[in-house]
Amino acid sequence: MAKRDDELVLLPLGGAGEIGMNFNAYGFGPPGRRQWIVVDCGVLFGRETTSPGVDVIMPDIRYLAERRQDVLAIVLTHAHEDHIGAVGHLWPVLRCPLYATPFTARLIEGKLEEAGLSDRVRVKRVKLGGHIDIGPFAIDFVSITHSIPEPNALAIRTPLGTVVHTGDWKIDPDPLLGETTDQNALMKLGDEGVLATVCDSTNALTQGHSGSEARVRQALSALIGSLNGRIAVTAFASNVARLDSVAKAAREHGREIALVGRAMHKMVEAARETGYLSDFPKTIDEHEAAQLPPRRVLYLMTGSQGEPRAALPRIAAGEHPSVSLGKGDAVIFSSRIIPGNELAIFELHNKLAGLGVEVLTEQDHFVHVSGHPCRDELAEMYRWTRPRIAVPVHGELRHMSEHARLAKALQVPEAVVIENGHMLRLAPGTAMIVDEVPSGRVHLDGKVLIDEGANLARGRRALGFAGFIAITLVLDGKGRVATDPAIIMEGMPEPVHAAVRDAVAETLKRHKKGDEEALKENVRRAARRAASDAWGKKPVTRVEAVWV
Amino acid sequence: MAKRDDELVLLPLGGAGEIGMNFNAYGFGPPGRRQWIVVDCGVLFGRETTSPGVDVIMPDIRYLAERRQDVLAIVLTHAHEDHIGAVGHLWPVLRCPLYATPFTARLIEGKLEEAGLSDRVRVKRVKLGGHIDIGPFAIDFVSITHSIPEPNALAIRTPLGTVVHTGDWKIDPDPLLGETTDQNALMKLGDEGVLATVCDSTNALTQGHSGSEARVRQALSALIGSLNGRIAVTAFASNVARLDSVAKAAREHGREIALVGRAMHKMVEAARETGYLSDFPKTIDEHEAAQLPPRRVLYLMTGSQGEPRAALPRIAAGEHPSVSLGKGDAVIFSSRIIPGNELAIFELHNKLAGLGVEVLTEQDHFVHVSGHPCRDELAEMYRWTRPRIAVPVHGELRHMSEHARLAKALQVPEAVVIENGHMLRLAPGTAMIVDEVPSGRVHLDGKVLIDEGANLARGRRALGFAGFIAITLVLDGKGRVATDPAIIMEGMPEPVHAAVRDAVAETLKRHKKGDEEALKENVRRAARRAASDAWGKKPVTRVEAVWV
Repeated sequence: MAKRDDELVLLPLGGAGEIGMNFNAYGFGPPGRRQWIVVDCGVLFGRETTSPGVDVIMPDIRYLAERRQDVLAIVLTHAHEDHIGAVGHLWPVLRCPLYATPFTARLIEGKLEEAGLSDRVRVKRVKLGGHIDIGPFAIDFVSITHSIPEPNALAIRTPLGTVVHTGDWKIDPDPLLGETTDQNALMKLGDEGVLATVCDSTNALTQGHSGSEARVRQALSALIGSLNGRIAVTAFASNVARLDSVAKAAREHGREIALVGRAMHKMVEAARETGYLSDFPKTIDEHEAAQLPPRRVLYLMTGSQGEPRAALPRIAAGEHPSVSLGKGDAVIFSSRIIPGNELAIFELHNKLAGLGVEVLTEQDHFVHVSGHPCRDELAEMYRWTRPRIAVPVHGELRHMSEHARLAKALQVPEAVVIENGHMLRLAPGTAMIVDEVPSGRVHLDGKVLIDEGANLARGRRALGFAGFIAITLVLDGKGRVATDPAIIMEGMPEPVHAAVRDAVAETLKRHKKGDEEALKENVRRAARRAASDAWGKKPVTRVEAVWV
Repeated sequence: MAKRDDELVLLPLGGAGEIGMNFNAYGFGPPGRRQWIVVDCGVLFGRETTSPGVDVIMPDIRYLAERRQDVLAIVLTHAHEDHIGAVGHLWPVLRCPLYATPFTARLIEGKLEEAGLSDRVRVKRVKLGGHIDIGPFAIDFVSITHSIPEPNALAIRTPLGTVVHTGDWKIDPDPLLGETTDQNALMKLGDEGVLATVCDSTNALTQGHSGSEARVRQALSALIGSLNGRIAVTAFASNVARLDSVAKAAREHGREIALVGRAMHKMVEAARETGYLSDFPKTIDEHEAAQLPPRRVLYLMTGSQGEPRAALPRIAAGEHPSVSLGKGDAVIFSSRIIPGNELAIFELHNKLAGLGVEVLTEQDHFVHVSGHPCRDELAEMYRWTRPRIAVPVHGELRHMSEHARLAKALQVPEAVVIENGHMLRLAPGTAMIVDEVPSGRVHLDGKVLIDEGANLARGRRALGFAGFIAITLVLDGKGRVATDPAIIMEGMPEPVHAAVRDAVAETLKRHKKGDEEALKENVRRAARRAASDAWGKKPVTRVEAVWV
């Protein structure tokens, strides 16, 4: 039973405004005495254009860190990086129990091990379709379909109503591996009454239906059968059903399978250990593969996004120790282009074309389907669950806005576009933002966590644009120039160096003594002005002084 | 008549391996005494990921510069930046006559003026369908269709045969502005015998047909008629037929037109001055537009690629002085996404969605067609011209390879994939690479031209990744450390600063005297190692010394 001043709130700290970095907290209780659960704990990948030198980005969770004792659990819906990638970094901040189904748990424990946390926490296993009670939250795991084994929606029951948190999902009558989306369970929840559906927005701009994995399998088999040279298929390693499809198609056409790339081996191993891929064909290693006639080999490899250190890009660059491709061979990209990776992927295509390798992609062949719901599937979800409130998450603003518009058109009474850090009261009463809490992004910069607000990466971006001038003045006890300064310049053309040196010398010549700060500022300005006149750009410039 | 040792060669210095930076030279004569014409002189735009701080990139033409007296002319096919953008920078290197049709000439002269070259050179006007004789080259301008006024193919006749250089083209029975592609002229050339067709590869990976501008006009009109708030349409300013379509659709639905953005004004002015847009509706200015009811206004604006200083991105950021958009308004992107611009454009969509503006794009509405030939159109070109040799240009390797494969499939006897700097002998004999000349890219970095090989931008990219440490040691006459060094660090987290300072101090403490170079190297290594230990990344590090 809910008490008089109990409230149910949703607080997204990641995933509202971006596809990635999913981190949603649900709070129950009176304001000031809420208990929390967290759903998913993911990362976003850094971009050279906005955050050069940053590998991954995670949510700023200081608000929950400050009330750590009231955070009862982190529940993980599935094992994609944008849902579990931050566990190794953020678990130490919250130190609460972790819940996941077995395959997801297996991969999370790999992350905990890498972070040196294996001794401190283990993941509590929940069986598929299972149930857990955590404080005021009674949670049913509802099997759905996605592009990885064991995806789950969560039916989160509270004394103030039930939230269906969809996680990442799609509808596929024949997903090949794992369960179909449990339509009956979702309809039953709808019959019982759903307060809010908190739902994946990734494909809210895409008409129709995401398509079936079984059809991809057929098409891949036909395509593989039509080729005569070596074949390399690159796909997301976590798409275990796809790996299975490719492997089976290879066997059908008399090809041996070699896995190439660390993530590929890791994922196949995790899948096998948790009971999947039991009839996956025996693989051979890269060296054995190199000995076989081209038409007897199929490589299954990482690198579909053009990641420079992954297998396929290294092979295309001729830098892989044991795999090479050439004229007569073909590469099948059984994957989509993640926005932002276009140029890296096209560069990879160009390198392969330069080797004489045929490049086959989803642009011309039916070799990939999305794991996220398109508009027709979203409509089904709202018909099944019939919530009072639709809360789009897992999307950029453009996806969430369109998703909310669609929900409204489907007669959902309330549809709310939220931002990270906005605390949305789901009950009682009309859905409403009741608080705004500190939020933002934290960069894993090298191995150090840095608040995005510190602008460290943005500052480096300025270095990338116009370079750096470091000037050290040498002053005597009276503040007079004792000797020539050291001027270290990086990233600017040669003629600019001379112009800067002259301008600094000129400024120092005019200086008599005293006021060191004014002198440093004059030198800084003179250097930047000289660079700007000679070059049209103003380098980042710093001036220090030493005294002798 | 060709002499015994005459040869006809094609030398691409840009555009073979990239979409952009088009620069093809044709040489005729015996090896060592060739005369040259250049077709097009374009730029490529810089990318933050590969060349931060570089606005435009142009070809390295040192090979032609060294034989400037034998370069007879530059002929420009049409006025897109990737065909004329380098004229202001490279004309001073070649100083030869320029030829173009009137609209193109008008825009080139704008560039010459910006470069301060107006007094030194004027563009020789060629009428549409006109003819020019330049040394051994007799050139017919053949009208084609593209996405800008006055696009031309060139039929380049030489004593050793005729080359059809297509320029950028498509087939559109109803291009709305300008001529249709002159099929009769091309077929007649085919009847006479074409040695080589040197052809646009942009859409060689795209099945079917690029589509008709007239259908876009109909669809735009219907879409504009369906909207009630303010409408902003963003399109490539040079697509004058599109501007005309939008303006006419606006008038049909009782909307006044306001142009927003410098390029939009400039292009409409150039089109009017050269006889186009004679029935373009009278426009109003931004201030008048702001006074009208929303349903009476249509803005035609720049910024479709998310360029930060263009009109639409400034409006979306709330930074435009006289135009604002909000709830109930709509933006139509009547343009495609140029690869590499995805994230900037999606960010723009997100900002607009955040303002409550509806975003309509070619993903959901028929609001754009490409100006380049898809595969069915390429097939037509080969059927018309029936060349002995197909030479794909204007494409990345992936486009050119597929284009060559298509030409072969269409029974063209020879199809050659070339690279910039490869000199391809077209006649006599089989097409063959006969020389490889210096080639490459030159960056306009600020206002300075820098050889790409100098790695200036690449060096700055390293600064963007891991920052910069500049250390100045202070030594006395005996090479002893006289006082504390100055250590200037940029782009790294605070704890790294202390680690670097400690490591440098430690290294200096161990130093007695002498061997300054060894000391500097030791300090440099110690600083980088300390940064790497504390941070996982190695900043660019430079060490200098001053003597007191």
